[in-house]
Amino acid sequence: MRAFAAERNWNSYHDPKSVILALVGEVGELAELFQWLPAGAARELAGAEPLRTRASEEISDVLLYLILLADVLGIDLAASAQAKLDDNARRYPAPASPG
Amino acid sequence: MRAFAAERNWNSYHDPKSVILALVGEVGELAELFQWLPAGAARELAGAEPLRTRASEEISDVLLYLILLADVLGIDLAASAQAKLDDNARRYPAPASPG
Amino acid sequence: MRAFAAERNWNSYHDPKSVILALVGEVGELAELFQWLPAGAARELAGAEPLRTRASEEISDVLLYLILLADVLGIDLAASAQAKLDDNARRYPAPASPG
Amino acid sequence: MRAFAAERNWNSYHDPKSVILALVGEVGELAELFQWLPAGAARELAGAEPLRTRASEEISDVLLYLILLADVLGIDLAASAQAKLDDNARRYPAPASPG
Repeated sequence: MRAFAAERNWNSYHDPKSVILALVGEVGELAELFQWLPAGAARELAGAEPLRTRASEEISDVLLYLILLADVLGIDLAASAQAKLDDNARRYPAPASPG
Repeated sequence: MRAFAAERNWNSYHDPKSVILALVGEVGELAELFQWLPAGAARELAGAEPLRTRASEEISDVLLYLILLADVLGIDLAASAQAKLDDNARRYPAPASPG
Repeated sequence: MRAFAAERNWNSYHDPKSVILALVGEVGELAELFQWLPAGAARELAGAEPLRTRASEEISDVLLYLILLADVLGIDLAASAQAKLDDNARRYPAPASPG
Repeated sequence: MRAFAAERNWNSYHDPKSVILALVGEVGELAELFQWLPAGAARELAGAEPLRTRASEEISDVLLYLILLADVLGIDLAASAQAKLDDNARRYPAPASPG
């Protein structure tokens, strides 16, 4: 992604607020795919074509802007997400399993 | 808007979560209009055509879904917004004017 | 709202991209209220307290930033929304009523 | 994340529309961190504490819901994102380097 942006001279556009707005745009496209689906059938409908491919693309677009944002901010996304998972496990302890 | 939805038998789609997703979709389209504009020039660029008309349309789309959501939930949007304004004035007091 | 912002010297913060991000923040708070509600019960649950007041507040917050954005851009929100409604009526004709 | 949700009996909440709303909530929190920062200083400000840690956490929250959504839909997120990158390279060819 860094090479992709650099080759097109797009780096100057990638200030954090602009990238977040681009992320919001992609989240909006993702929401539009699902908005009128019946809640109970959404998982099944989105697991089949043609929705499956479109959902994959929109989820990927969100991910790519999220990675770009992390890169612009110098954030190690994998380490940060793992830390958040560990933190969630502490904040929401699992119920003890019986037995 | 009520007549519009009723005539098309769309009311059954208008559960709150679906309407919020539709709202998110329109907010996404609004964000896309502005995402790569230089921050300092966005106001001037969006005040002139062709962006002005497109921004008006997207802002209106967000408003219409917001009104639909309030209607679905039985919320009086005008009264509620006025109450929020009054509340904001209490929470963020204006600095005393000199003199 | 203009007086409110002017008295607090907040106008300089109200460039369009910043206001859209603030709008996104409020839409996020609205989404959080509804995210884990069962789709079929969301309307009823949000029509009763304590959710009703919180939903009113979040919807109002979204509306206030939307009005601020329209004002910053010099857009007449009421006229623009009415034009969009008329346009929707043309684009999605109601089915002829029987009889 | 699968184990985390299963241990807490949260899987029943994870229909796609609910997860997208949760994602929207986290995107809103991310937007709120940046909304009033001057555009030109946002990168530098967010690269230093205390904003850096908070931005990391919000970006991670978005990522975790995005991964959850992909998992719920049976989408291979890494393969899908790589395909999207390849597609972007085709759609937006880099200018030829001089030489």
